[in-house]
Amino acid sequence: MPHAPWAMFELHPAFPPTSHALGELPLCHVRLQDDARYPWLVLIPRIAGAVELEDLSGNDRAALMEEVVLASAAVRAVGAATGRPVAKLNVGQLGNVTPQLHVHVVGRRAGDAAWPGPVWSMGTAEPYGDAMLAGAWAGAKAALGL
Amino acid sequence: MPHAPWAMFELHPAFPPTSHALGELPLCHVRLQDDARYPWLVLIPRIAGAVELEDLSGNDRAALMEEVVLASAAVRAVGAATGRPVAKLNVGQLGNVTPQLHVHVVGRRAGDAAWPGPVWSMGTAEPYGDAMLAGAWAGAKAALGL
Repeated sequence: MPHAPWAMFELHPAFPPTSHALGELPLCHVRLQDDARYPWLVLIPRIAGAVELEDLSGNDRAALMEEVVLASAAVRAVGAATGRPVAKLNVGQLGNVTPQLHVHVVGRRAGDAAWPGPVWSMGTAEPYGDAMLAGAWAGAKAALGL
Repeated sequence: MPHAPWAMFELHPAFPPTSHALGELPLCHVRLQDDARYPWLVLIPRIAGAVELEDLSGNDRAALMEEVVLASAAVRAVGAATGRPVAKLNVGQLGNVTPQLHVHVVGRRAGDAAWPGPVWSMGTAEPYGDAMLAGAWAGAKAALGL
C-alpha cells in the first residue's frame, strides 16, 4: 500500500456507526466503541493511506505504542465506570474488514461475552444506554486528558 | 502485575508445544507458530513478570514495536516460502490463556481458514510437514537476520 503524504487523512466511514469520537491525541483519533459488553477504545493514526504498522515512520510507531498505553489506562477507567473491571488487556491491529490502520484496546475479564477468545467477529455489539455511555465517556476523557 | 526485575526470565511452558524457537532479537525471543494455515510468528519480550505492555519500560516498548515490524517482514517471507502470500498483517497482544506477555504477528489472505475473523481460538492448528517447515524456517531466519 503506497503511502501518499500529499493526501488528506479522512476517517473511514465504517467507524462512526459503531463508535463515538473521544478526541485527538498527538498521533491518533480516539474512539469509544459503542459496545457495553467490553470497555473498548480504538486508535486511528491520522496518516493518510496507512494500512499496516510498516506504513508509519519509526517516530509515529513509537508514538502509537505510547498512545496504546494511554488508551489502556482509559480502558481501565471505562471498565471501572461501567462495572466491567479489567483483568486483562487485549490489543489488536487487524484491519481485515476495515483496512484503514487502527488499533483496538479492549479490557477483558473472566466470563465476559467472548472470554477467553478474542472479541472480534464474536456476537453482536450491545450499544450503551445513555447513562452508562455518559459514565464511560467521562472516564475515558479524564484518563486521556481530553 | 508487579514487575520483578530480580527474577530471571523463563519462557512459559505453553509455547514450546505449539511453536519452534527461531532465535533471539535484542528484546524478544522469537518463535514460528507450528500452524501451516497461516504464516505466524510470536514475539516474547525477555522481561520477567511482564504481562501487559504497561509492564515494559518506554524504551522496551519502542524496541518491541520495531521487532513487530521486523517480524512482519519475516511473516511475509514465511508466506512466500509456503504458498500463503500475505495480503494483510494481523498483530495481537492478548494473553487471555497464556499470561506471559507475547505478541502475535500473523499473515492473512482472503479465504484463509479464519478470514476475515481473527485466527485466535479458531479451529485447530495444522502442524507443518518437514518440507514446508524447512522452507518457513529458512525464510523467517533470513528475514530476521538470525
